[in-house]
Amino acid sequence: MAAASSEVHHPVDPGISKLQFAPFSSALDAGFWHELTQKKLNEYRLDETPKVIKGYYYNGDPLGLPARLTLEFSAFDMNASIPARCCPAFGTLYNTNTFETFKSCDKKSLLEKEANEIWESIKSGAALENPLLLNRFLLLTFADLKKYHFYYWFCYPALCFPDGIHIIQKPVCLGDRFTLSQIQALQKAYDELCHKEGVTALPYFLIKYHDNSVVISPLKRWDGFFQDQGGKVAVGVYDPCNLSHYPGWPLRNFLILAAHKWGSLLQSVEVLCFRDRTMQGVRDITHSIIFEIKLPERALGPDCPKAVGWEKNQKGGMGPRMVNLSECMDPKRLAESSVDLNLKLMCWRLVPTLDLEKIVSAKCLLLGAGTLGCSVARTLMGWGVRKITFVDNAKISYSNPVRQPLYEFEDCLSGGKPKALAAADRLQKIFPGVSSEGYNMSIPMPGHPVNFSEVTMAQARKDVAKLEELIDAHDVVFLLMDTRESRWLPAVIAASKRKLVINAALGFDTFVVMRHGLKKPKQQESGDSCFNNASGSSDLLGSSLFSNIPGYKLGCYFCNDVVAPGDSTRDRTLDQQCTVSRPGLAMVAGALAVELMVSVLQHPEGGYAVASSSDDRMNEPPTSLGLVPHQIRGFLSRFDNVLPVSLAFDKCTACSTKLKRPDVQAASYSLPRIVLNRLHAREASRRQLFRNFGMVAAGNQSIFIPGQIFLV
Amino acid sequence: MAAASSEVHHPVDPGISKLQFAPFSSALDAGFWHELTQKKLNEYRLDETPKVIKGYYYNGDPLGLPARLTLEFSAFDMNASIPARCCPAFGTLYNTNTFETFKSCDKKSLLEKEANEIWESIKSGAALENPLLLNRFLLLTFADLKKYHFYYWFCYPALCFPDGIHIIQKPVCLGDRFTLSQIQALQKAYDELCHKEGVTALPYFLIKYHDNSVVISPLKRWDGFFQDQGGKVAVGVYDPCNLSHYPGWPLRNFLILAAHKWGSLLQSVEVLCFRDRTMQGVRDITHSIIFEIKLPERALGPDCPKAVGWEKNQKGGMGPRMVNLSECMDPKRLAESSVDLNLKLMCWRLVPTLDLEKIVSAKCLLLGAGTLGCSVARTLMGWGVRKITFVDNAKISYSNPVRQPLYEFEDCLSGGKPKALAAADRLQKIFPGVSSEGYNMSIPMPGHPVNFSEVTMAQARKDVAKLEELIDAHDVVFLLMDTRESRWLPAVIAASKRKLVINAALGFDTFVVMRHGLKKPKQQESGDSCFNNASGSSDLLGSSLFSNIPGYKLGCYFCNDVVAPGDSTRDRTLDQQCTVSRPGLAMVAGALAVELMVSVLQHPEGGYAVASSSDDRMNEPPTSLGLVPHQIRGFLSRFDNVLPVSLAFDKCTACSTKLKRPDVQAASYSLPRIVLNRLHAREASRRQLFRNFGMVAAGNQSIFIPGQIFLV
Repeated sequence: MAAASSEVHHPVDPGISKLQFAPFSSALDAGFWHELTQKKLNEYRLDETPKVIKGYYYNGDPLGLPARLTLEFSAFDMNASIPARCCPAFGTLYNTNTFETFKSCDKKSLLEKEANEIWESIKSGAALENPLLLNRFLLLTFADLKKYHFYYWFCYPALCFPDGIHIIQKPVCLGDRFTLSQIQALQKAYDELCHKEGVTALPYFLIKYHDNSVVISPLKRWDGFFQDQGGKVAVGVYDPCNLSHYPGWPLRNFLILAAHKWGSLLQSVEVLCFRDRTMQGVRDITHSIIFEIKLPERALGPDCPKAVGWEKNQKGGMGPRMVNLSECMDPKRLAESSVDLNLKLMCWRLVPTLDLEKIVSAKCLLLGAGTLGCSVARTLMGWGVRKITFVDNAKISYSNPVRQPLYEFEDCLSGGKPKALAAADRLQKIFPGVSSEGYNMSIPMPGHPVNFSEVTMAQARKDVAKLEELIDAHDVVFLLMDTRESRWLPAVIAASKRKLVINAALGFDTFVVMRHGLKKPKQQESGDSCFNNASGSSDLLGSSLFSNIPGYKLGCYFCNDVVAPGDSTRDRTLDQQCTVSRPGLAMVAGALAVELMVSVLQHPEGGYAVASSSDDRMNEPPTSLGLVPHQIRGFLSRFDNVLPVSLAFDKCTACSTKLKRPDVQAASYSLPRIVLNRLHAREASRRQLFRNFGMVAAGNQSIFIPGQIFLV
Repeated sequence: MAAASSEVHHPVDPGISKLQFAPFSSALDAGFWHELTQKKLNEYRLDETPKVIKGYYYNGDPLGLPARLTLEFSAFDMNASIPARCCPAFGTLYNTNTFETFKSCDKKSLLEKEANEIWESIKSGAALENPLLLNRFLLLTFADLKKYHFYYWFCYPALCFPDGIHIIQKPVCLGDRFTLSQIQALQKAYDELCHKEGVTALPYFLIKYHDNSVVISPLKRWDGFFQDQGGKVAVGVYDPCNLSHYPGWPLRNFLILAAHKWGSLLQSVEVLCFRDRTMQGVRDITHSIIFEIKLPERALGPDCPKAVGWEKNQKGGMGPRMVNLSECMDPKRLAESSVDLNLKLMCWRLVPTLDLEKIVSAKCLLLGAGTLGCSVARTLMGWGVRKITFVDNAKISYSNPVRQPLYEFEDCLSGGKPKALAAADRLQKIFPGVSSEGYNMSIPMPGHPVNFSEVTMAQARKDVAKLEELIDAHDVVFLLMDTRESRWLPAVIAASKRKLVINAALGFDTFVVMRHGLKKPKQQESGDSCFNNASGSSDLLGSSLFSNIPGYKLGCYFCNDVVAPGDSTRDRTLDQQCTVSRPGLAMVAGALAVELMVSVLQHPEGGYAVASSSDDRMNEPPTSLGLVPHQIRGFLSRFDNVLPVSLAFDKCTACSTKLKRPDVQAASYSLPRIVLNRLHAREASRRQLFRNFGMVAAGNQSIFIPGQIFLV
């Protein structure tokens, strides 16, 4: 690609007779690239069609600065205002998806296409009506958002006269040619016209000089404006160049326009390169230059003239430029946008309907910061969840770090750091943009020995109050403890507050991941008979026992229980105390727990979504991410998962709405005794129920899957 | 429980007439607890039956030290030698599985049982033959190996005379009673008898004094030894006590023996408490004490006398003691044994046949340290694998830490640390016992542009040589890269070296985890026609197309390919460049890749094991850990896994043995050009094959699973 033929390379002897022009330098600031990144991620995605963008240039720079076309943050907003006294320029952005497309792009044809549009606007007269059509630009980009490297190539297309332009009168300063009052009159006339037209600058204008006054007119008034000038006209151009012997680039297409419209009529054209500087509070246009040229005699044909305009790179060659913004960006912001990028990439092609906001904004409470808690937290981070809170009362022991992926050897020294606090700290170290907190506290448990001293009772009350407050403040509650009974109180509180509960529990090589049924809001309860056991049990005999069960009818972890939660840690041998499981199990279960949450959140009905079962695997999935099961039960020895569904038990010790739920507010002042008493009372009535009715609610005790019986 | 009634509590007035004894203090050193831990983990596991252990005591301690019964590392080894001049004591270890069993143990009946055995050995005469039967002890323990807290209660059973023992002659020093030559004669006689009996010490012995000589005899010679002594006998006891007025505990049961055997015949007994000190190189027994007692007149009945002996705790009460070894152990060793513990727990009850050593000792090479590599490494750590090596050429970028669980924000600063090195460092931080290394290098890839300069060619040759060396030095090769083609060269090398290859690859919400077929060693190849396509293709038409396929017939990642490996990163959009996948997917696939490796290693035939398919899920699994599939293909949108099996393709570009394999040794000097050339040649012949035979090997292109077609 050849460089612009009449471009100014060095200050040359002004005695030459051909007119030369100072090209634009592109000035693309960090705000522009930031906004391009946002547009790419959120709007363009894989769309490569050309986009209209807007830049501006200025005719008031101090000597020494190159003529710049500036693109900033506002370049994508057509309604954004242009800085005072600056002149807008519209351009076309070609943002490619790959570096290969960027490199192999046919720049010659892009330039020709743009030049042709300028030529057409000249021929049609549109450019006379709207002179901005003459100063258009092109920008070819590739944004490598993994590395924050931005590749670009700027082009300001200029149509060329085949033989160049002859200078009749060399450039001189305005101050060397006109009187002060004439200069002031020119300035006043320019300002008035700007004001009248409602613009920040006039890129091109017509001028008539009288003794002590100047008349200025927009281009569209040409006809008639120069009638009395005897074939000699004067035109003004808003000139970003500040060299004393050369005009800037914008004049070029205007001269083509002039030659095309009136070339044969004009003997010469006087050009004012209007430069408008304010120094130390004093406005000054006297450094504007003025010169006279002769338009070429050889007429322009019907075809578009040859065009030039691709910018040279920093090395002076014809090639693209690159800016590496990773070095100048704040690393924390860089991390945030990188994490965002990875997530948004999912939306581009794979899951365009993914509602990331629902996931990212979910406030997650993790009860348990052990093997499951660590894996769940890491997967939540991967999904961009920004609010993660841990509750645990254990300290990190030496066997933990190899299985609990938020801890290290150092965390075990001196008796071990509290897990909840260490986990929260680690998340910050992984990604400073996350808001993580840890609470080193116990969760009161039924059946566990409580010392009824004032101190321990007061502590238990405080723990219950804190737990309730935490559940209130979050959207999703993950039950990730290593005992059954510790899941009970949070399950009760979360059920009463209608929070989504995701429960995960491990065996040696089996796991269960489930969402608890989400009860309907209280005002809807009475009108609905779904919790009525009489009508419910007849439903259960139907053939589609576990199909189309909505979220509010689903069971919780305790609905299938036949024993009350008790102390399961007493009298356990070492292998029963530690959760002895195949090391890969917690990672699988932790990851699936989060993926289940994500799928539920993507469903328009959220926690009320009808549960998908194994049978639904062949059907059209209910969300863009797939199925929304009630439970995932995994069997590592067979590398198999099944998706059972179970109904809520209306006498469940944890989630039933029929049996009087312990008033959690009251309980927080009297727990654990009161809650435990109520639990025991309920448990007794439940056992009574079993005695009275036998298998009154088959669906509530065990779920039969061919070849498998699940007893929780 | 009452304390021993005639125990010395404080130095008391020696004028009292009843004999009192200084009890043993148990001295259980860290070596003992260490060995108990090892026995518990590797041998006893959940076995609670009593075990014989061995301690010793010493009669040469300086004044001020309590009489100690020492148990150390060697306590469990009946053949271990006893330190010079120390006296052995045998005991019974009751190691409980739970703290509850420890606490609720019936200590009275344990003591009675042991006392009864002593009594029986006295009555039967066995104790005369083997006096060690008199100084037995009990040790009740609970080892909390999660916290390294050891609870224990020591008992040295002493049978009691109902009315105590009357002193006739108060204790005096040997030096105050005998002449130097008599003392030297005693010492000489004792040494000679020890030598004759081949023991380090005589716990009990008989003494006759003459003017300038002393005769000493073992207990079994009692009859006749004292015939000429007129009903007055002298006995010696190896005495660990060094108080000047009291004997130590071992004398007690001996006096019961004496009273039972000869009580009615003897008027009095002279007792020598033999103490044998070496100070500043000079041996000295003059501080031994000697006194005379009268054995009780009331005869012992046929029933076992009352016994005492449970040790008091540090607070002086009747209760167990606890040592917390977590504080005094080297934290790194503590971490190692804790990690061991967690693994060994699996063997105790759940998978008794698990061969952990095969897993722990597997040397694993991870090619790729991204999302998959990090998850695989973490799961390997959980399984106790001690040798993990990473190869990667990328640097850690800001989007990595939230998805790649070995990196943190800080690792991204200043352009990012090399992944392979940072990952290896992180493993050390997690568990100092692991041996991890990282190699920041590229894996030469077919189809990727190579600059044929001397420098890059030399680098490529070095990389190939290093890769080959690494594959040689490891047992399992994990392919965890993000491009197809980077898997090719390692697959070729690993196939030729018969290394187990585990391959994992991610889609957006699907993954494949597979083991490559493991070719038979070269000498077996020729005799086997399984690679013969002609006979192979007829097999393929059978109904049991994918059942009972042995490991050596299984395909590799490239066997199902219909295109040659080429540059898949060129011309990819941002979402194709990043591995855009659901964040939980890598954790699931990484964990399953390791679990697959573990299952393969547990199979007696290892990589040659017949592949399990989805159909085998209902059958008896081939290993204690379950199935050993060829491939696991996961579908996160359906929370489903299937286990396809595919056959090796005998013209495969990576694993075929029929087509001339590039000589890797030669290739390492000429790669990538030569290997690429050969690849292209083979690819050409493969395409030819497809043209000639059409779907010649249906099983090698796509695997049909009801509802799914898999094309790799």
